[in-house]
Amino acid sequence: MSRFQGAGGVRLWAVQLRSGVESGLHCCVLLALAPAGRSVPAGVLAEFHELGGSYLVKTLQSLEQAGIVRSEAGRVGGFQLARPPEKITVLDVFVALEGDSGFFRCTEIRQRGPMPARGAACRQPCVIAAVFDGADDAYRAALGRTTVADLVDGTRSAVGVRMAQRISEWLARSGET
Amino acid sequence: MSRFQGAGGVRLWAVQLRSGVESGLHCCVLLALAPAGRSVPAGVLAEFHELGGSYLVKTLQSLEQAGIVRSEAGRVGGFQLARPPEKITVLDVFVALEGDSGFFRCTEIRQRGPMPARGAACRQPCVIAAVFDGADDAYRAALGRTTVADLVDGTRSAVGVRMAQRISEWLARSGET
Repeated sequence: MSRFQGAGGVRLWAVQLRSGVESGLHCCVLLALAPAGRSVPAGVLAEFHELGGSYLVKTLQSLEQAGIVRSEAGRVGGFQLARPPEKITVLDVFVALEGDSGFFRCTEIRQRGPMPARGAACRQPCVIAAVFDGADDAYRAALGRTTVADLVDGTRSAVGVRMAQRISEWLARSGET
Repeated sequence: MSRFQGAGGVRLWAVQLRSGVESGLHCCVLLALAPAGRSVPAGVLAEFHELGGSYLVKTLQSLEQAGIVRSEAGRVGGFQLARPPEKITVLDVFVALEGDSGFFRCTEIRQRGPMPARGAACRQPCVIAAVFDGADDAYRAALGRTTVADLVDGTRSAVGVRMAQRISEWLARSGET
């Protein structure tokens, strides 16, 4: 569960990633399952995932800006992966959609108040910020160890090879007019 | 920097922790620097860090609910650490203030649309969620390796032993009426 009991009995949601990360990764998996060289229209990606089209377009634009997908205009236009799925990590997609900053923002509390840290005491990051920088590095390293190709393999294992084939065929048909 | 260029040229802030985590940890470090057995009033903690008192009270209440600090009423009332600083990890404070959910929220996109995953295909978490679960574990493991005692040691190294002593003396004076 993502909720917890906050102070004063108010139930709070913990900070969470924007949902674009989830849908963006599902799109990458689907594009990897599409027949080779085949572009998939944004509307088809939206239909397959039952997501709002305009919402998904923003996600796809961010992925395109990051060089993860490329778009093609024309009668059977749409999106393709811009490079092989084994060359796209989950971290690439995460950074494209969430940015490359860490979760922790240090506001330099140590420099405030009646006894502020100054000069040499501030040459290194605050000890608290340093701990979170390390945790962010560990988070990103974990995401960097999995590629879209790994996600495709995992999806094939989960849904079965026949279903993966049916998805590919559905994608081939759906782009046609 | 915490900002990045999002789709359409709009500058976005990446998802970030609530600021209570930063101030809560600074309070724990300060309470560890206070003379043994000495309670520090919330107003003194707020003054030292130049933070709004009512804002800090919420953070302190959450830390108290989690058993990290305890409060004492009375003439020299206030807050103390509820256990030795080497028994409080950064993760303890993080969970008290941010909850124990991960950053990624899986909305089961795989179960939507014209070809939803069903039955056996959904017995395991979605492959995408599993990657983020692993990253969350790595993040929390990193936070769990540092204690408030380590932060105090780091602070002493950064500001110098004399300044740490002056802070302790300031805390001893500030609670007095």
